[in-house]
Amino acid sequence: MIEAFLKKVKQPGINHVTYIKLFFNLKIKVMGYHEWKSCIDACLKCASICNHCAISCTQEDDVKMMARCIELDMQCAAICYSAAQLMSMGSPFAQDICRICADICQQCGEECSNHHTQHCKECADACKACAEECRRMTGVAT
Amino acid sequence: MIEAFLKKVKQPGINHVTYIKLFFNLKIKVMGYHEWKSCIDACLKCASICNHCAISCTQEDDVKMMARCIELDMQCAAICYSAAQLMSMGSPFAQDICRICADICQQCGEECSNHHTQHCKECADACKACAEECRRMTGVAT
Amino acid sequence: MIEAFLKKVKQPGINHVTYIKLFFNLKIKVMGYHEWKSCIDACLKCASICNHCAISCTQEDDVKMMARCIELDMQCAAICYSAAQLMSMGSPFAQDICRICADICQQCGEECSNHHTQHCKECADACKACAEECRRMTGVAT
Amino acid sequence: MIEAFLKKVKQPGINHVTYIKLFFNLKIKVMGYHEWKSCIDACLKCASICNHCAISCTQEDDVKMMARCIELDMQCAAICYSAAQLMSMGSPFAQDICRICADICQQCGEECSNHHTQHCKECADACKACAEECRRMTGVAT
Repeated sequence: MIEAFLKKVKQPGINHVTYIKLFFNLKIKVMGYHEWKSCIDACLKCASICNHCAISCTQEDDVKMMARCIELDMQCAAICYSAAQLMSMGSPFAQDICRICADICQQCGEECSNHHTQHCKECADACKACAEECRRMTGVAT
Repeated sequence: MIEAFLKKVKQPGINHVTYIKLFFNLKIKVMGYHEWKSCIDACLKCASICNHCAISCTQEDDVKMMARCIELDMQCAAICYSAAQLMSMGSPFAQDICRICADICQQCGEECSNHHTQHCKECADACKACAEECRRMTGVAT
Repeated sequence: MIEAFLKKVKQPGINHVTYIKLFFNLKIKVMGYHEWKSCIDACLKCASICNHCAISCTQEDDVKMMARCIELDMQCAAICYSAAQLMSMGSPFAQDICRICADICQQCGEECSNHHTQHCKECADACKACAEECRRMTGVAT
Repeated sequence: MIEAFLKKVKQPGINHVTYIKLFFNLKIKVMGYHEWKSCIDACLKCASICNHCAISCTQEDDVKMMARCIELDMQCAAICYSAAQLMSMGSPFAQDICRICADICQQCGEECSNHHTQHCKECADACKACAEECRRMTGVAT
């Protein structure tokens, strides 16, 4: 689309007014599902694994030790789902929510890293991957 | 609206074709946010209190005893939010989901009734009220 | 609770160690479902009415004019549900998400105010009320 | 695990009490995130693409023609997210919700098939794939 625009404005006899008209017809590429797909996928995977981890934690022998993990899993699942929703809607607020999402994922990933169950390991990996995707999506170098 | 229809079709000289036309102009009242408001409110209250109860359970001294309560709270919150969503969208599938919602609320309410903490008592009440609203909405006498 | 603490530490003969013990017994009031109830209720009402408004917009004769309203309704419903979830979980991230929620509600409420349908009027009211509650909850004077 | 159990109970000298003990140690495999992963993935992909399709529909020139598509996309996204949540929680109600999910996905996929935009084509594919996964998961031959 940009190529078509550049080709047109290089034509002889183009004047100021036509240039501006062409420029505003050049639809700015809007971000959405396809552009943010890897971040959406990371959020949705993280949300599902957090739900799985929370339920699995309640079934451990020492549930008390997992209390903080359950709490963070629940918060992380909630924010990840809504971040994915806003990104797939191409919302201009998607980056704001991904900034918060990165912080929750980071905390949840760190808590999960303290435990040695299989579900906590999986969850730590998913949370860290999601935090990284969210930071990349919001333009923060990781 | 039905009264207006019945009045018109009782007029002398009405024929078959006019009758059918009038019948199809009679717009069937579509159910949605306003018609299902009390059930939507019950679902949203139940979802919020289930989230609150699950987190509060993780902070009890004997978390192990609350394990099943946390699990059911999480499931109940998930189904209640989506039942409220489909009802507020006026979805023809709203009754199907409210039937499942009633069952989860019933189970969650019974589990919560076994515990004597304030949050479980509140949750038991919200779950039972929601189960009842869902059954009424789906036409099942309670 | 703070009063009880202050009363105790003013007793004669209190020493350094007892003071510290008393201080740490003073449980800081954690915010959650009950403290944020009016904001949670505003978010959930707003989410439901946004869903209702979006669907109602698609059934208007001039859907094209409602396009932006549908888009904002969808985004607003998504953020409002997740803000309510994090608040009812007593999440330390609740205020961050309520700050974004206030912005989306504000925009959605302004867009809805441009239309004269009953559902847009209701939605404008619910959005503005929710934006105000979110700003109050995050400590921003409105 | 069942093999290990059968091997042990066939050992000579096993008595009634030991048999019962071994039987109850045999943990029944519970369904959850890992067993239902392909259905969870299909639901989450479908939900995201439905959100993307709904927003894209509002930006088409002839929005009126897309009205029913937007409505079904919104309902489909809502049910798909909650089906994925209940599956990842290993909920005994997951199959009930997947049965409804299959029906909504089927309808939404058929509506999307009527349109020739890229987003509707993608959405039709995602809906049909999700309907099939949900039917397989609930034990209905497709």
